Amino acid sequence: MATALKVRFADGTTGEVSDPAQALEIYRHSTSHLMAAAVSSLFPQTRLGIGPAVSDGFYYDFDCETAFGEGDLSRIEDRMRELITRDLPFKPRILSKEEAVGLFSGLGEALKVELIEERAGQQLSCYQLGDLVDFCIGPHVCSTGMIHPDSFRVLSLAGSYWKGDERNRKLQRIYGTAFLAPAELQAYLTQLEEAKKRDHRKLGRELDLFSISEEAGPGLIFWHPRGTRVRFVIEDFLRRTLVSRGYEFVTTPHVARNALWRTSGHYEYYRENMYVFDVDDEEFVLKPMNCPGHIQIYKSRMRSYRDLPLRFAEFGTVYRYEKSGVLHGMLRVRGFTQDDAHIFCTREQVYGEIAALLDLVLYIMGSFGFEQYQVELSVRDETKNEKYAGTEEEWSMAEGALVQAMTAKGMQWKRMEGEAVFYGPKIDVKVIDAIGRPWQLSTVQFDFTLPRRFSLAYIGPDGQPHQPVMLHRALLGSLERFMGVLVEHYAGAFPIWLAPVQAVVIPISERHRTYAGAVLTRLGENGIRAELDDRNEKMGYKIREAQTAKIPFMLIAGDKEMESGKIAVRNRFEGDMGAQSIESFIEGIKGYAESRSARP
Amino acid sequence: MATALKVRFADGTTGEVSDPAQALEIYRHSTSHLMAAAVSSLFPQTRLGIGPAVSDGFYYDFDCETAFGEGDLSRIEDRMRELITRDLPFKPRILSKEEAVGLFSGLGEALKVELIEERAGQQLSCYQLGDLVDFCIGPHVCSTGMIHPDSFRVLSLAGSYWKGDERNRKLQRIYGTAFLAPAELQAYLTQLEEAKKRDHRKLGRELDLFSISEEAGPGLIFWHPRGTRVRFVIEDFLRRTLVSRGYEFVTTPHVARNALWRTSGHYEYYRENMYVFDVDDEEFVLKPMNCPGHIQIYKSRMRSYRDLPLRFAEFGTVYRYEKSGVLHGMLRVRGFTQDDAHIFCTREQVYGEIAALLDLVLYIMGSFGFEQYQVELSVRDETKNEKYAGTEEEWSMAEGALVQAMTAKGMQWKRMEGEAVFYGPKIDVKVIDAIGRPWQLSTVQFDFTLPRRFSLAYIGPDGQPHQPVMLHRALLGSLERFMGVLVEHYAGAFPIWLAPVQAVVIPISERHRTYAGAVLTRLGENGIRAELDDRNEKMGYKIREAQTAKIPFMLIAGDKEMESGKIAVRNRFEGDMGAQSIESFIEGIKGYAESRSARP
Repeated sequence: MATALKVRFADGTTGEVSDPAQALEIYRHSTSHLMAAAVSSLFPQTRLGIGPAVSDGFYYDFDCETAFGEGDLSRIEDRMRELITRDLPFKPRILSKEEAVGLFSGLGEALKVELIEERAGQQLSCYQLGDLVDFCIGPHVCSTGMIHPDSFRVLSLAGSYWKGDERNRKLQRIYGTAFLAPAELQAYLTQLEEAKKRDHRKLGRELDLFSISEEAGPGLIFWHPRGTRVRFVIEDFLRRTLVSRGYEFVTTPHVARNALWRTSGHYEYYRENMYVFDVDDEEFVLKPMNCPGHIQIYKSRMRSYRDLPLRFAEFGTVYRYEKSGVLHGMLRVRGFTQDDAHIFCTREQVYGEIAALLDLVLYIMGSFGFEQYQVELSVRDETKNEKYAGTEEEWSMAEGALVQAMTAKGMQWKRMEGEAVFYGPKIDVKVIDAIGRPWQLSTVQFDFTLPRRFSLAYIGPDGQPHQPVMLHRALLGSLERFMGVLVEHYAGAFPIWLAPVQAVVIPISERHRTYAGAVLTRLGENGIRAELDDRNEKMGYKIREAQTAKIPFMLIAGDKEMESGKIAVRNRFEGDMGAQSIESFIEGIKGYAESRSARP
Repeated sequence: MATALKVRFADGTTGEVSDPAQALEIYRHSTSHLMAAAVSSLFPQTRLGIGPAVSDGFYYDFDCETAFGEGDLSRIEDRMRELITRDLPFKPRILSKEEAVGLFSGLGEALKVELIEERAGQQLSCYQLGDLVDFCIGPHVCSTGMIHPDSFRVLSLAGSYWKGDERNRKLQRIYGTAFLAPAELQAYLTQLEEAKKRDHRKLGRELDLFSISEEAGPGLIFWHPRGTRVRFVIEDFLRRTLVSRGYEFVTTPHVARNALWRTSGHYEYYRENMYVFDVDDEEFVLKPMNCPGHIQIYKSRMRSYRDLPLRFAEFGTVYRYEKSGVLHGMLRVRGFTQDDAHIFCTREQVYGEIAALLDLVLYIMGSFGFEQYQVELSVRDETKNEKYAGTEEEWSMAEGALVQAMTAKGMQWKRMEGEAVFYGPKIDVKVIDAIGRPWQLSTVQFDFTLPRRFSLAYIGPDGQPHQPVMLHRALLGSLERFMGVLVEHYAGAFPIWLAPVQAVVIPISERHRTYAGAVLTRLGENGIRAELDDRNEKMGYKIREAQTAKIPFMLIAGDKEMESGKIAVRNRFEGDMGAQSIESFIEGIKGYAESRSARP
């Protein structure tokens, strides 16, 4: 919708909103009211919670004795369209706090009354839509006729709690979405459908990659053999890349005295996310971060300027408390392995390190098939300098280096004012996946606080101790989350270099088993991850199964192949690729793996 | 000493002891009394604790106001030799409990009185040696003249507590050793000296392999870059070997609900060694074992007999509580990474699996340079069948398979009656290191209890569920401990394939730096772990440092080498090896690495 959205404000005046994001939010908010009006008319005993617009649509929380069912969703949609036909106006009204309390008490809307009573001001507003009166600041579209009947969808049901607190009354939440144009809704629904097919939890089960065990606990990932194969390929690739770029790997324990976390400040600022336990009447912590461990190694001996930069990398598994309600497959967990590194360098080395890091980020993302990305530069809020660690001069040095390096790399970025963490500015990189969704993966962060807290030093050319600069950085973020993203990006059809099974050898009948076994051995000797499917099943069935398992190559061995020492090659995307000698197949697959190509 | 030892028993009779182990124990015990007599004569106010023979010598605990110093040790030795010259008899005496209490009370020996009062019997014995009267059951050598003046050594001082309990009186312990022949003492002292030079804690610091941080806590290993390089070589080698032998790697979390550990039985039987903490008012456990995790993966889907054997491997880091007093470098720690695996198979597959395991154990040990080993077969105590899980038939099947496989492999073993763990019989393999010390590394264990506790099953060819057999096995035991053993075995001079730095390139002067840098790049491209030493130091100094760091090759680059495109090669063992072309050096070092040879 290129034209502006006409809206009515709480004071009754009208206006136009031309900012698309703002217009969309208002449109969704109005559609949410429309949904509430439909629900109220279908279920008259329903009382109202809140109904805001959210990042991908809107929801409304209802207090209703009757449990809504999936079948109600389309009835609600139908009623919404009826109300659109009637072109009901969104009628605002300004009223005093007392009047508002009286009004909503009279309507039996106890939750609304609670909200009103918490408000400080004396002037409040509400909107009436048909029989529905809602306590609301607006603005809204002028009438229901302005909502296109094909621009919204009532999507799903969920349980929720009043004010999001489990101790409060349980409510029923209905999710919906709306877009300014029906075509946009269609695109969104298609993406949603596509996302459902790619759901890494579903594919993770089907492809036997990982599981979560109720007996062991929520948010804890068990990597199965096939998942671990992919993980090892990722780790090995990163290791080779990092070593060739001057990183050194270290290995640090998962637990440490709380003294360490008091020095680092985590005990003070991050305590609620940490798992703690007692050992010999002393408190220990299951590590939520790797930084203090890497710092111990830095401090294990005297460092000279000649030793710097030191780049310590680790696949470090950390544990952080998350509420069980927010856990989600591999994407949001309680234990995960960061591809973590900390760079200790002099101030003179900062720019070079940042430039090399951005280069590395792009190389790694490209290698995994992510070509599009968004970059955010988070800087401090200069009006609140007291909130931040580090000196004025350190912040401007750091920001300067980040900006200079991005510029040199020809990157575009969005400047996020006031979004920096207290210990330093940072760059975050989000990749865009195959269906257009952004995923936050890489991060590069300055840290002005840990070098001070741990009194880090190196001896400069002047023979005096100096404080090193410390950078935190992760490329993939966490292996668990990255695996989830990869599965969804590729819809489970991993590129050949990552595929847990790269080829399956299928003998046509009993008498081709030995030959098929010999082919398997050859492949194994050449480092190809291959399996044999010699079950007593029909060929068609085996091929369909391999196709479902997204195995790149099916190698069929029958009489003809046995005689000629070849195999009939089938690819998951291209189908039949004809007969090939074992050598040429091996050459070919190695080539695909080395180039890390996504196809065939 | 081939001849028997003449001894005097408590009743005054004499006899001969011909069993060498028994004779040695008596000889050490007598030397301990001799030491006590020497201490009493030098420090007359000293009161006695106990003074037994132990596995590598003897000690005596003393209660003395004066703190003994290192300088006192040789004074004590001298006084012992004086007493030998006087050929004092060990005079036994049988006395009643009352007489004994009276005697030692009169001597002011309160600790001896406490010991006597705890004894049940009425007949007790003591031995007198010069002025020293000791409550002792004997036997002893007949007189001090039978102790060879060059057969013992007073070694060291330590603090101790009466009856080993920290709440009791603090005592001073003096350690010594003695052998039946002076030559044996000399051999032992040489080994002790050699062990001191090889101490992995000292070498670990000098070679920058690892550290333990007071701030982080005891028993927790920080692997430095150089240590991690060695660890990665070990892990990669194991991974390749295991994958080629049909293992599949998995990755499991470090924490789980206590419910999991209740099912496994660890919560009941192993609770005091486990670290536990609360999450959402529920108890979680930091894993002390990997087995329940691997079992979760086994149980994540229905298994068929066609899927077996399943061999799940993991470098699994576990945490177990140990008293801080027993912690020792990398050898005894609180957190360690097992090279763990669990095999799930049918009963028919058991023998094949055990045979393959023994083959694997010997291959791995040989690859790391251990050619000698001792094997122990731990079986149950058949008189106490109620102590053990599993049926009669399972135990005999398991023991039969272990014995059959060892026999087929031509192995010698020691049968340890009653030493089996309650859940099944096991084989333990101890390797003998370069100076003759045994180290327990590999273990292969049957487990009859976990498959039952977790209701594991597979569908047999009959379509019915059956219970699989489960084997636990570790080859290296733990990576931390194995690293400590490797360092001590090789005295820090790792074989080329394991060396953290395989070569150091040393330019003779400033103008050879570029050439040396180019050599370094070539080595890096060929996967060789090399460093450049271009500091402004003398050549001799750099070579000495590289030698101390036990770096296999020093590559010296000067005018001659630069002109001819060669390098002058020096080896840590063989010294100057002449000039070589870069290619031929690379070929050579790759050959050494591939063959995993210990030299040059």
